[in-house]
Amino acid sequence: MNKTIGQQTIKFESKPKIISSAAIVGPKEGAGPLGEYFDKVLSDSYYQEQTWEKAERKMAQENIDLLLQKAKLSPDKIDHLIAGDLLDQTVTSNFVARKLPIPYLGIYGACSTMVEGMILGGTLIDGGYARRTVNFTSSHYQGAERQYRTPNEYGDQYPSYKQWTATGSGATLLAKDGSGPVITEATVGKVVDLGVKDPMDLGSAMAPAAADTILQHLNDTGRNPEYYDLIITGDLAEVGSKLLKELLNEEGVDLAKNHDDCGLLLYNSDQGVGAGGSGCACSAIVTASYLLPYLNNNHYDRIFVVATGALLSPITSLQGETIPCIAHGIVIENESKNKDAIGNQEYEYRQTANSSIEESEGDK
Amino acid sequence: MNKTIGQQTIKFESKPKIISSAAIVGPKEGAGPLGEYFDKVLSDSYYQEQTWEKAERKMAQENIDLLLQKAKLSPDKIDHLIAGDLLDQTVTSNFVARKLPIPYLGIYGACSTMVEGMILGGTLIDGGYARRTVNFTSSHYQGAERQYRTPNEYGDQYPSYKQWTATGSGATLLAKDGSGPVITEATVGKVVDLGVKDPMDLGSAMAPAAADTILQHLNDTGRNPEYYDLIITGDLAEVGSKLLKELLNEEGVDLAKNHDDCGLLLYNSDQGVGAGGSGCACSAIVTASYLLPYLNNNHYDRIFVVATGALLSPITSLQGETIPCIAHGIVIENESKNKDAIGNQEYEYRQTANSSIEESEGDK
Repeated sequence: MNKTIGQQTIKFESKPKIISSAAIVGPKEGAGPLGEYFDKVLSDSYYQEQTWEKAERKMAQENIDLLLQKAKLSPDKIDHLIAGDLLDQTVTSNFVARKLPIPYLGIYGACSTMVEGMILGGTLIDGGYARRTVNFTSSHYQGAERQYRTPNEYGDQYPSYKQWTATGSGATLLAKDGSGPVITEATVGKVVDLGVKDPMDLGSAMAPAAADTILQHLNDTGRNPEYYDLIITGDLAEVGSKLLKELLNEEGVDLAKNHDDCGLLLYNSDQGVGAGGSGCACSAIVTASYLLPYLNNNHYDRIFVVATGALLSPITSLQGETIPCIAHGIVIENESKNKDAIGNQEYEYRQTANSSIEESEGDK
Repeated sequence: MNKTIGQQTIKFESKPKIISSAAIVGPKEGAGPLGEYFDKVLSDSYYQEQTWEKAERKMAQENIDLLLQKAKLSPDKIDHLIAGDLLDQTVTSNFVARKLPIPYLGIYGACSTMVEGMILGGTLIDGGYARRTVNFTSSHYQGAERQYRTPNEYGDQYPSYKQWTATGSGATLLAKDGSGPVITEATVGKVVDLGVKDPMDLGSAMAPAAADTILQHLNDTGRNPEYYDLIITGDLAEVGSKLLKELLNEEGVDLAKNHDDCGLLLYNSDQGVGAGGSGCACSAIVTASYLLPYLNNNHYDRIFVVATGALLSPITSLQGETIPCIAHGIVIENESKNKDAIGNQEYEYRQTANSSIEESEGDK
């Protein structure tokens, strides 16, 4: 059985199913265009806790409870928990795992964590090492801002190209058996660094990594972008998305028709989020609460989710280093694979959804 | 084909081979009882760099070059790079990965990273998703000390139960084909936290996690500790090793005859290292340069390496949290599995090696 395609792509022959997904988000994310899709929206960033770190943890913990409830499964039915986050030493994930009697594999992929976790979960299930895996991640605007940049109270300038770390936690439950969208292939990314130094400009830093993984995936599989209803990046936002398309155009790949970005979908442009969303939660909550239900409801037949991560730390930036980045991609398909029956209907639906986001700009 | 045993144990039916291993260490580690086993010993902690973080990176980078040279393989023959470290956002690993054209999976397991990486590499190879994987980790005493505790220049008290973060980088190359010790099973650990709060006392914090994983492994496999020539923990050091044996004794498991700890093997007791070694590098360098060659040379037939990690951050300690810990175990066997032919000879050999460490105390 051939389990690899080309140089960097893995094939999940058994098509592991995503039988449950869940997302809890902060107030700003709840007020955005996808607000109604999330399972729960917090009314404030502290979530009745004394610190932002504890609020993030509480949110991630509740989200796992929700994920398991939706699947009607108790924690002991899960074989592996795979998680990571942005906080130093990935402490949100570690502390959530402490409450769960599930073997734990900690990962670090910055904002690519969600897809990295799904890829590892996929190999564990498809390889026969697990029946069910849960992967989750989270981020918190204020917690991340104080760790990576300056305390929020300093009120420093917010350049238009800077992105807004999403507050939220997203999780998926992958299983050998059950019902839901399926993962069929994954492309594990290489670290790419084209020399961007400014830690405020992560979109520009990450776009080349996304381009590298998308090109590699298309080469490995011999496909055109049109094979997918949607190629969606994790958190390139406005600056990075534009750059990604330019980079791919140079290689003769045109994403104009079917590219979108979770960081662009998450907020209205008048919400004061600079170039758009970012953070581990960004691709996680959009995938869990918007993309997967859309696949379930036949609005998409197959999509390629490419989550991008900037692998810097505050110390490396202070020491004058450039920013290494990565992008991991995963192909998710509608379980019934009924694209032919539906034709292009679902693609138009997405465009409409997108348009409504633009229309709603200025509402708030 | 049954790929799992009991509740938490994975079986690698195809027995992935460890075809190369390498370790570069700091001056203190080089002066310890295992000094002669390491591939390279640095003459100073800065290693001609301006910062400790850059020194750690240079060491880890060189070590990968060495690992590949020893295996006579170029980087493009490696399918996945799996790595993590102690620095915030695992930047040593990320920046080393930037130099390598290899798909990268970042992980975080604190001092359990080496074994977590070998487990994931094992599943990727055994599952058919990779032919060869490299996993590595590193730590640096001064870099870790300043990040986790206080700048070294403060000269704060060093309690006898505190451990010394090893300076070094260890790496292994796992392959489907080739020659070397084989990995046969792995037990993925759960997060365990029995309420230890003192970030100086990580041995006490981690011992319950090690006990949990060892017990689970023995239960899953139906084995006695004597099945192994050696059950070696990662970095429990003096305090944690004693506690581990007590905890297991309460469960009727006696490790008196065949337990050792990488943190105890690494230094002479007069080197001023408190209770012994710790850090991601601790189990990594001892495994890469001492345990694996011993398996290769028929001194051991099969060992169980249990790497322990304390999953805290400076922030969680300051916020009054206790310390969640984890331990991942992996079974490594002599490729020729000729235990019966050799009898107990190799076990005596190890005891001798251990005794010589004790004898050498006071030499320096």
